[in-house]
Amino acid sequence: MLKGNALIAQGGGPTVVINQSLVGAILAAQNSELIDRIYGALHGVSGIINEDILDLSEIPKDELEIIACTPSSAMRSTRDKPDDEYCKRIVEVLKAHNVRYFFYNGGNDSADTCKLVSEMADNIGYELIAIHIPKTIDNDLLVTDHCPGFGSAAKFVSQAFAGIDLDMRSIPGVYIGIVMGRDAGFLTAASALAKTKEGDGPHLIYVPEGLFSKEKFVRDVDKVYKKYGRCVIAVSEGIRNSDGEPVISTILENKEFDAHGNVQLSGSGALGDFLSKILKDSLNIKRVRADTFGYLQRSFLGVVSKQDSLEARSVGSKAVEFSTTLQKSGSVAIKRVGNYEVDYFLTPLETVAKNTKPMPPEFYDEDKAMVTEEFINYVKPLVGDLPTTGLISAPSVERKIIN
Amino acid sequence: MLKGNALIAQGGGPTVVINQSLVGAILAAQNSELIDRIYGALHGVSGIINEDILDLSEIPKDELEIIACTPSSAMRSTRDKPDDEYCKRIVEVLKAHNVRYFFYNGGNDSADTCKLVSEMADNIGYELIAIHIPKTIDNDLLVTDHCPGFGSAAKFVSQAFAGIDLDMRSIPGVYIGIVMGRDAGFLTAASALAKTKEGDGPHLIYVPEGLFSKEKFVRDVDKVYKKYGRCVIAVSEGIRNSDGEPVISTILENKEFDAHGNVQLSGSGALGDFLSKILKDSLNIKRVRADTFGYLQRSFLGVVSKQDSLEARSVGSKAVEFSTTLQKSGSVAIKRVGNYEVDYFLTPLETVAKNTKPMPPEFYDEDKAMVTEEFINYVKPLVGDLPTTGLISAPSVERKIIN
Repeated sequence: MLKGNALIAQGGGPTVVINQSLVGAILAAQNSELIDRIYGALHGVSGIINEDILDLSEIPKDELEIIACTPSSAMRSTRDKPDDEYCKRIVEVLKAHNVRYFFYNGGNDSADTCKLVSEMADNIGYELIAIHIPKTIDNDLLVTDHCPGFGSAAKFVSQAFAGIDLDMRSIPGVYIGIVMGRDAGFLTAASALAKTKEGDGPHLIYVPEGLFSKEKFVRDVDKVYKKYGRCVIAVSEGIRNSDGEPVISTILENKEFDAHGNVQLSGSGALGDFLSKILKDSLNIKRVRADTFGYLQRSFLGVVSKQDSLEARSVGSKAVEFSTTLQKSGSVAIKRVGNYEVDYFLTPLETVAKNTKPMPPEFYDEDKAMVTEEFINYVKPLVGDLPTTGLISAPSVERKIIN
Repeated sequence: MLKGNALIAQGGGPTVVINQSLVGAILAAQNSELIDRIYGALHGVSGIINEDILDLSEIPKDELEIIACTPSSAMRSTRDKPDDEYCKRIVEVLKAHNVRYFFYNGGNDSADTCKLVSEMADNIGYELIAIHIPKTIDNDLLVTDHCPGFGSAAKFVSQAFAGIDLDMRSIPGVYIGIVMGRDAGFLTAASALAKTKEGDGPHLIYVPEGLFSKEKFVRDVDKVYKKYGRCVIAVSEGIRNSDGEPVISTILENKEFDAHGNVQLSGSGALGDFLSKILKDSLNIKRVRADTFGYLQRSFLGVVSKQDSLEARSVGSKAVEFSTTLQKSGSVAIKRVGNYEVDYFLTPLETVAKNTKPMPPEFYDEDKAMVTEEFINYVKPLVGDLPTTGLISAPSVERKIIN
């Protein structure tokens, strides 16, 4: 049984429950006889290569519990995408600090980093267990049923659309809400939880899993608007045109690219304004509004799915448990049992690293621009119940003046 | 004592607690011996002139309590701005339905409508009591200490910025959040509640009460970024340049105007993108992001200030109480007593109608682009406590490789 220090780091975009995983891991590590000190690297892997490392071993439990409920990576994050050289350096630093258990909390890139680091350690004969702790509001990791962080972001998105639909009932018009999601539409699709009865919005949902056509978009909106006198639309920032190219990359003047060569999607209102303009130019609808939900959906203080929070805590503690009992590297994954319990297991790093998972075809009906009942059944337990709302139901008063 | 029917309507932009006022008024009216039937006009005053009126008298209390907790005008709203002719028609319809108590829930324009309707009724000798029930997330009504709807929107804005600041700590950059507010900066200023310790964002706040200068903006951001390695900025959609012109009206290609001749500010990401570009062009900061909070801040389901909710209920019930006991028209206003209780009183309609109230100079320090302690003391009881958050506090690990 490998004995030594543990190091944990957080990578990629934050979530509101990511620190539940951090605290879950710290508390479990405190109870492990195989783990001596519990280190935390600042700003993900970049904190490792720069040796910006804190000793988290002695943080009191009451402080940890407050941190667990605080949104966004408490150890701070990085967008660095480590190559072989970078990972070699990581292993050197881990070795210098006698780190035998390395936990990296992030998405598919973080899983890939774990894999590379694990291979590098093997190469130089340094015994190291590298565990990927899953996290992403995009919900696009392979193997796992769903990802910690997604349920809470989905709760934010669905509560936003529930309010927006009521707003648009009150002052009719067309509303476009742009939701995060480059390659997978899970989060945008979750807006459908706002629909509790016939006629509720969002009425149309466009995701990267379908191909976006301006012509169909205009037809779809026209039909809904004629039927309901309003139209509420949820759109993924990553929607693609018929060439498979992100629509936003066809309209941005100054494109910005990340370390992975992807064009920057968030932090601009361009896509919403572009789609608004299409509708204003094509349809005789005066009131067309677009909002881009932006960073609110991943970091808003106080909107948290209870189930998501519990699971985020568990993947952290399970990471430590699996690493110490199974004595091997891997990625923690969630298995859905019945409707609704979960079980956790360790899956090989290579099954999660690099690639992502789009929504399966049975979750989305491209023709109707709407999610299926199967998707609703999938997503509902992850988000939990939304606050109850009600509409006025009352008899009309007989007219006295107008016939 | 005037006896007859009551009619209530909702005007202008919705809030998340506006139906508390509706339900407060309905419940109080049910208990009044002077009020027979309780009518509700659909879509504000336009529902009166079109005789689209519901009879709300028999809605069961449990249904009313659900409606009270539902965001956005349950009776639906209107942007109509009634002139004399329109108001004459309103009085005709009210008379035809023997309405003696007219309640209009809205902002300063709704108060103005009440005033006109009251005068028209006087002119034709029809006895009518017209009561304005205050509501606006802009918090810009005269006389009243603050406005129902504001506290909850302020809670949304401050929780958003609290999360955003943590997000920007995690992945550093500059963040611009555009908040609603055409003439008054109260809502944008409320973002300062997110600051709980030195260094917390928002670091800069720009409101319509100050004049916005690009040069100062760039200098301000540069200074903050150099100090904290990030900069979180709250900006009112209505910020004005040195000519007093809204900045957004200098950048929009296709301007849209409302019934009051005001240029449409919300529902577009243009201002945020414009401000981002200024910073990208002037400063060597790669990561600049802008979000426009849009309709989320006034209709988001589930983020409600308890105090705001209670007060919104009270202004509705007080409206009925004042109308029946005082037997005169007026606008319900809130008086702040100590720290913190409230009292309600009726103020003449002409003291609230038409004009709005900007933030008083002692609430905002234009030079520092920041609110004052006085503003914080003013706004805090209206919003209530935000969820507690905490940062990691732990010793650094001694470096073994880097000197």
